[in-house]
Amino acid sequence: MTIALSKGRILKDTLPLLKAAGIELTEDPGQSRKLIIPTTHPDVNLLIVRASDVPTYVEYGAADVGVAGKDVLLEHGSTELYEPLDLNIARCKLMTAGKVGVPEPEGRIKVATKFVNVAKQYYASIGRQADVIKLYGSMELAPLVGLADIIIDVVDTGNTLRANGLEPRDLIRTISSRLVVNKASMKVKHDAVSRLIDQMSRAVQETC
Amino acid sequence: MTIALSKGRILKDTLPLLKAAGIELTEDPGQSRKLIIPTTHPDVNLLIVRASDVPTYVEYGAADVGVAGKDVLLEHGSTELYEPLDLNIARCKLMTAGKVGVPEPEGRIKVATKFVNVAKQYYASIGRQADVIKLYGSMELAPLVGLADIIIDVVDTGNTLRANGLEPRDLIRTISSRLVVNKASMKVKHDAVSRLIDQMSRAVQETC
Ligand SMILES: O=P(O)(O)OC[C@H]1O[C@H](OP(=O)(O)OP(=O)(O)O)[C@H](O)[C@@H]1O
Ligand SMILES: O=P(O)(O)OC[C@H]1O[C@H](OP(=O)(O)OP(=O)(O)O)[C@H](O)[C@@H]1O
Repeated sequence: MTIALSKGRILKDTLPLLKAAGIELTEDPGQSRKLIIPTTHPDVNLLIVRASDVPTYVEYGAADVGVAGKDVLLEHGSTELYEPLDLNIARCKLMTAGKVGVPEPEGRIKVATKFVNVAKQYYASIGRQADVIKLYGSMELAPLVGLADIIIDVVDTGNTLRANGLEPRDLIRTISSRLVVNKASMKVKHDAVSRLIDQMSRAVQETC
Repeated sequence: MTIALSKGRILKDTLPLLKAAGIELTEDPGQSRKLIIPTTHPDVNLLIVRASDVPTYVEYGAADVGVAGKDVLLEHGSTELYEPLDLNIARCKLMTAGKVGVPEPEGRIKVATKFVNVAKQYYASIGRQADVIKLYGSMELAPLVGLADIIIDVVDTGNTLRANGLEPRDLIRTISSRLVVNKASMKVKHDAVSRLIDQMSRAVQETC
């Protein structure tokens, strides 16, 4: 069984849940440049991929299982993934944000974000005309240099917004990371996958 | 005047060219988390953005000028940018690559890359059917775990390919970084922009 996840907060918060399922790493992926990490479980490998790539690896079956933020899953928008478990980790908020004290324009609004699909759906749902500009990183720069009126990004402590003279505005939705499963793996590797879901699910409940 | 560029090799190789145009940084962007960097020239600021975001900042006029790799410009595919100068820096090759010793399949080929537009154009141009899978990072993992037969990525020393048991195959094109200019800035700030192009152009010629 192959499990795809991203470095950083998701990896850190997933390790205890994997441990509860009898899966421990044999080396520290934070230190290593290796992208395929063996575990103490002979049949389980971890793939270290970009957060945005997790749904792709699982959808195409290159990983059986993955851990991805709901923000990434919404943006990816696949119906080809099972999402059996909210891991309740890496919690944050997907929000709009703008310059402190600067009111939003009346007419069309310019929105910069890496979540372009989410942004288009959001503004359609509230009946607001928006020009959505795709960015790959550092969304917080866009309002400061006039690229956009508003950004859509994930907010945790709010430090990134504050440090850039921005303020949170509208909550689009609360975010946490989810276990996602490839549809074929759910059938072909049913026993192993179900066991993993059960054991991680118990560990999540014990943490709450 | 605002100049957008990305950290890393492009920044390092652009600094001497900017210096030749009388523009020097007042702080080290490698050390700083600041995204807007003042220069010794009172009218010039640098924006530090993701490599893939440079064409967007320049196209929308949030930066007047930018430095971007030809790979990024081809993928962005805008006709709204002037591209007056090949800076002849950050040279590399955009190539296909696959697992050492594994022949490519006969029929449809699975290709993983962040350059999806370039990939589709390339396979159309050689009359080959290809399923292109968008990735955001670590392309070199894809063939190792069966996500794709082939990747398309930039290759410099070839170390990344070798370290992952991959070999370069077809050269799609040679890459270098270009100066790009916003169309309106070229008119409205004509004198400042022309002077920058001239001075950087002379510095490029002296380096060759
Ligand atoms: O409210 P805060 O606590 O400041 O957190 C918000 C930051 O976290 C996210 O980036 P992340 O650290 O996930 O990495 P990224 O910059 O690579 O997206 C997001 O894009 C913000 O930059
Ligand atoms: O042939 P090499 O000398 O090994 O160089 C190739 C590497 O450089 C590029 O990544 P880059 O370092 O630009 O950063 P990235 O991984 O963030 O794309 C590319 O994606 C390869 O990983």
